[in-house]
Amino acid sequence: MTRELSLDDIKSRIRNIPDFPEPGIQFKDITTALKQPEIFSAVVDLLAASYTDKHISRVVCVESRGFILGGAIAAKLGAGFVPIRKPGKLPAETISATYKMEYGTNSIEIHKDAIKKDDILLLHDDLLATGGTVRAAVELLKSFNPRKIYICFFCELDFLKGRETLPDFHIRSLIHF
Amino acid sequence: MTRELSLDDIKSRIRNIPDFPEPGIQFKDITTALKQPEIFSAVVDLLAASYTDKHISRVVCVESRGFILGGAIAAKLGAGFVPIRKPGKLPAETISATYKMEYGTNSIEIHKDAIKKDDILLLHDDLLATGGTVRAAVELLKSFNPRKIYICFFCELDFLKGRETLPDFHIRSLIHF
Repeated sequence: MTRELSLDDIKSRIRNIPDFPEPGIQFKDITTALKQPEIFSAVVDLLAASYTDKHISRVVCVESRGFILGGAIAAKLGAGFVPIRKPGKLPAETISATYKMEYGTNSIEIHKDAIKKDDILLLHDDLLATGGTVRAAVELLKSFNPRKIYICFFCELDFLKGRETLPDFHIRSLIHF
Repeated sequence: MTRELSLDDIKSRIRNIPDFPEPGIQFKDITTALKQPEIFSAVVDLLAASYTDKHISRVVCVESRGFILGGAIAAKLGAGFVPIRKPGKLPAETISATYKMEYGTNSIEIHKDAIKKDDILLLHDDLLATGGTVRAAVELLKSFNPRKIYICFFCELDFLKGRETLPDFHIRSLIHF
């Protein structure tokens, strides 16, 4: 059933919110897509399908929206789930990475015991924009020396060229704007 | 394979962190369980199994840890996914509910167009403690007049008796402390 939905069907359910969270930003609201059972199933199936033969051991996801599809993809692939969170949220010993925002900086953290060096990782977030968050996440993951890091997004804002800042990685996005 | 894991196997992978986030609190760190592929699969399967015949149309999850298993349960049940978030995070028109914390109050929000009145809902969060958050979430959901609301948690702190504050609901928790 889900395979009969086209990417255009999925894309048409994503709502554009002008000037959120700041003036000038066209926010892509994925909640209108994810609340539809057939769309949610199709998105999970289509994202997971690219990795069924990749022996992914852990899906690593960026708080918070990344958790939604990331958990579902991990379950579909039979992988474990690892969260990357904002500072102070993870209770045990962490390593952190800092990245630049338009104004100021942000940090993200991962538990020091979250990854093993023979892991094959799938890093997931809902949206690739300029790539600041995902570059910081990759920096965290590389410190564990995993066997491989794949990266996937639900949506990608092509015009921001975030992908070009991660030339060494296999990146897949389902929906392009 | 996953069925061979007992609830005690799952429980033994949850890490206790004393005095987090505040002195005196024994924090249940589920990340040590979720990162293990076989544990993550088992938890999702066991939580979803109680609802396969319930015709759940939408799984509603509380930010952020609730998103992890909630997304996976929604995918397993073929349901849609609806987030309940902290104030200011949802970009379209919302309704909100406020609840008391030990010190001060907290609010949560849901999109006004997130639920239809014929929906059969499964509300999920990772942990049932005193039940403040879930009561506020139920209040939000009842305003949509859904056909039914089921509630499930990964873990429940039995000694805090949060369950007793929600006598009218079918509540299931996988792991009890």
